[in-house]
Amino acid sequence: MIQVIKLADKFDRVTDLWSPKIVGRVDDYDVKIVKVEGEFVRHDHKDEDEFFYVLKGRFDLELDDGTVSLGPGEMAVVPRGVAHKPSATTETWLLVLESSKIKHTGDVMTDKTLARFEEI
Amino acid sequence: MIQVIKLADKFDRVTDLWSPKIVGRVDDYDVKIVKVEGEFVRHDHKDEDEFFYVLKGRFDLELDDGTVSLGPGEMAVVPRGVAHKPSATTETWLLVLESSKIKHTGDVMTDKTLARFEEI
Repeated sequence: MIQVIKLADKFDRVTDLWSPKIVGRVDDYDVKIVKVEGEFVRHDHKDEDEFFYVLKGRFDLELDDGTVSLGPGEMAVVPRGVAHKPSATTETWLLVLESSKIKHTGDVMTDKTLARFEEI
Repeated sequence: MIQVIKLADKFDRVTDLWSPKIVGRVDDYDVKIVKVEGEFVRHDHKDEDEFFYVLKGRFDLELDDGTVSLGPGEMAVVPRGVAHKPSATTETWLLVLESSKIKHTGDVMTDKTLARFEEI
């Protein structure tokens, strides 16, 4: 039987910030959830687009040509190669969809960079 | 600048049922929204997994081994090759993610089958 996943239950189990967890797979793509708050490292993904949908809070993406801000019920796709510095002033819950091949912070390595993504 | 899309605004423009509209692209995958109500045709997709997330209403998937029911905030992935008959007893809003190559009703052709998906 196919598993029905209540995202709020999964978020309840997430205790770390900026650490995407895999909740499903679609072919070679991952459906991830992530809790964010504060500032993250500016980075880009050379070969992968990245989809974000806000479930709770507010998610800001500082780009070369300005900042976009996503509230609950809003989505955006960051195209490959577009540098973005994510941040959130309050605890924010995101649904993310991206290739399973993607690296967390692109070619930038920081102390927040994950080598792999955990399933939850 | 990256476009921020409020899904509710897009749904307001959808007037037909069971007719997914493309709201974004992630590499070779489509992010779609679809309004559903009533019963749809049983079908499968031989080579593609299919992700569903319920924004409003309730979405039922009748499978060979039973029926799963998704409410708001719940998601499921229908794996490739798994026959499913979607239905909804009330107007239901879905976010869908799947390969751009996918055919609407797999190899089943009905009067509801779309040859291509419109962008909205």
